[in-house]
Amino acid sequence: MNKIIEESELQRKAENARKASRTLAVKTTRQKNEALLAVAAALRKHQSEILQANDADIEEAKINGMTASLIDRLMLNETRIAAMADALENLAGLPDPIGDCLEAWERPNGLHIQKVRVPIGVVGMVYEARPNVTVDAAGLCLKTGNAVFLRGSRSALASNRALVGITRQALTGTELPEDSVQLLEDTRHETADRFFKLNGLIDVIIPRGSQNLIQTVIRQATVPILETGAGNCHLFIDESAKPDIALHVALNAKTQRPSVCNAIETIIVHEKWLTRHGDALIESLRKAGVECRIDRAFSAQFPDLPVASEEDWATEYLDRIVAIKIVQNVDEAIRHINRYGTKHSESIISETPEHIDRFFQYVDASTVYQNASTRFTDGEAFGFGAEIGISTQKLHARGPMGLPALTTIKYLVKGTGQIRE
Amino acid sequence: MNKIIEESELQRKAENARKASRTLAVKTTRQKNEALLAVAAALRKHQSEILQANDADIEEAKINGMTASLIDRLMLNETRIAAMADALENLAGLPDPIGDCLEAWERPNGLHIQKVRVPIGVVGMVYEARPNVTVDAAGLCLKTGNAVFLRGSRSALASNRALVGITRQALTGTELPEDSVQLLEDTRHETADRFFKLNGLIDVIIPRGSQNLIQTVIRQATVPILETGAGNCHLFIDESAKPDIALHVALNAKTQRPSVCNAIETIIVHEKWLTRHGDALIESLRKAGVECRIDRAFSAQFPDLPVASEEDWATEYLDRIVAIKIVQNVDEAIRHINRYGTKHSESIISETPEHIDRFFQYVDASTVYQNASTRFTDGEAFGFGAEIGISTQKLHARGPMGLPALTTIKYLVKGTGQIRE
Repeated sequence: MNKIIEESELQRKAENARKASRTLAVKTTRQKNEALLAVAAALRKHQSEILQANDADIEEAKINGMTASLIDRLMLNETRIAAMADALENLAGLPDPIGDCLEAWERPNGLHIQKVRVPIGVVGMVYEARPNVTVDAAGLCLKTGNAVFLRGSRSALASNRALVGITRQALTGTELPEDSVQLLEDTRHETADRFFKLNGLIDVIIPRGSQNLIQTVIRQATVPILETGAGNCHLFIDESAKPDIALHVALNAKTQRPSVCNAIETIIVHEKWLTRHGDALIESLRKAGVECRIDRAFSAQFPDLPVASEEDWATEYLDRIVAIKIVQNVDEAIRHINRYGTKHSESIISETPEHIDRFFQYVDASTVYQNASTRFTDGEAFGFGAEIGISTQKLHARGPMGLPALTTIKYLVKGTGQIRE
Repeated sequence: MNKIIEESELQRKAENARKASRTLAVKTTRQKNEALLAVAAALRKHQSEILQANDADIEEAKINGMTASLIDRLMLNETRIAAMADALENLAGLPDPIGDCLEAWERPNGLHIQKVRVPIGVVGMVYEARPNVTVDAAGLCLKTGNAVFLRGSRSALASNRALVGITRQALTGTELPEDSVQLLEDTRHETADRFFKLNGLIDVIIPRGSQNLIQTVIRQATVPILETGAGNCHLFIDESAKPDIALHVALNAKTQRPSVCNAIETIIVHEKWLTRHGDALIESLRKAGVECRIDRAFSAQFPDLPVASEEDWATEYLDRIVAIKIVQNVDEAIRHINRYGTKHSESIISETPEHIDRFFQYVDASTVYQNASTRFTDGEAFGFGAEIGISTQKLHARGPMGLPALTTIKYLVKGTGQIRE
């Protein structure tokens, strides 16, 4: 009996989202922006209700022995609620990609073809503790005319219920259907597995969170996925690298925010540059509290550094640890990156144009840099205004994803009775 | 032992394709076009070798009791081989999308960002009897700088071996790596299942063939898919439709080539138009050998027509059969299409601009038509020069896919030492 009720929650909410998506798709920019502002106002107004629900989640998390860093991700406060509302207001101010005519042409037989941007339909969002993703995802989807079906974690259920309840309530006062935003409250794994297979009701699933979560979705889903996440990023310091730029960028890319995907995990150093500036590099990293793990072949030269194992080359530390790989030339650096990288962000510090060209051509990554920190790979730094995530896949969207990543296209063909001969 | 050998064929060829993809990705347009012409010439030169291999496949197919229509798909002859070579020569003449700069901008901090088209990497092609897909897919991939790993059917193995052997041999005389084209000769299902999960070695899988094949790939694959295929397409004849256009288009969309995905399967007729012109429509379809299955609610009016069941609305006949649904208005037509359609191609015959607008806005399909046949949904009719297939998914590519569908993008960021503050 319980199972039947819960299955029907999944099915019913997916169908309601699909139905809402049909009317939502044709709403005007004004209607969507007004709704975003209404939701922002409602969040500010109902702040204490949100905090109360969040308190309940935090209480339970503590009882369950959740780590302090996870509790921090789960926690909301006045500043964080204000930030969610600000983000919605910012979204309302961005250009609406829906309806844009990307191309238009006429065929010799007189058919007139237009290629226009339309919403994808229903977006399935699968994520972990952070309740701000709930509002963030709902806002991005509403702005692009997509309904959203949210599947957050069990630990944030009370917070998510409050946030979605307030959002849906706010939508009833706007011209957007309330059913545009759905929350799956059944957080069991077997229900998630069915969620991943709702082809026809969900058009795309975006997993946001740990590698473990993302890999689970990839393994189980039959609905197409927008993969975001893993960043085993490298900085290659070439023989001709200016030492000030190299040190400056290495430090920034490693330490400015070590827990994010576009921070570097391995510094690849040209042997000749290492001889001249290696000590300065290691010294400046260590001063910043970074543990340096050195290439085994050079461990004799750096006896007080721990040695990097094969596993280190493949590890995304997301912490104040960096592996140091020594190479003879740019090609060896490229091979190392293409072997161990996750095709996210890769940077070369060099004054040799041919090496930079080679690096740009041969490194397989969403974003390649010359003489700059990998930390710029995100929607804000690229000037996109809003970001859904950073795609590490090659289909549909790659690198920082702005609002157009939440759209698809439609061909509108106008004729006067044309038939195929 | 056998299993180990066969597993290593899969792994080895996938790794070779990946390796080849790295050098192939940076080949110039001239190098790729020369290779396409070399393969075309080799196919013409080795025609008798191909026909001999194909004969062996046909012989075995006959012994195995394959149907005549499947044998026709499998069969090659001089005309078909010439058509394959022609297609490669045509590809050589098309513009190369690789390297195109789609956008370029500068950020306030001086970072210069370019968004350029690059190859996807390794394309996995899964298909059925037609051996011409082997050459077609190889050509499209080479033109776009992608390596291709082909998994054809057991019944075409000798033909595919000959075609791939000749292609690879021809590549040795060009500047493209021979390993750019790989054929999986182990056609067992369990090996296909491992093929579908070669994440990291294959970047995208394109299934071409029956719905059964496509659904199997969707269920099993963890590699991203470009879905092509199913077309349950509709023609809606509105109250204001001109009878000559409606009859003309209905006949063309149903009978010009009933076996293809962009042919129509259901004609939706406005009740008032039916009263005036229904007999003429049915008469003209029946004259063309089309079986008309009528909406149950109107079966009394057409006593000599078989009745359409619920199943008919969802069936892609790919044959000289059409279901006829009667509606009261455009909204009912749209609801029927969005319920039973496969989001492929949908057409409205109408002289009422508001109805056409509504149809264009609310019908969820890759291509919507006004007063034209659905048969135009393909790369040739759209003017794309070459076509990989017609995407029925919403991510990455939708509708007819030209060469750009086989590309992804890469951001090239040039700096002078910029770091994230």
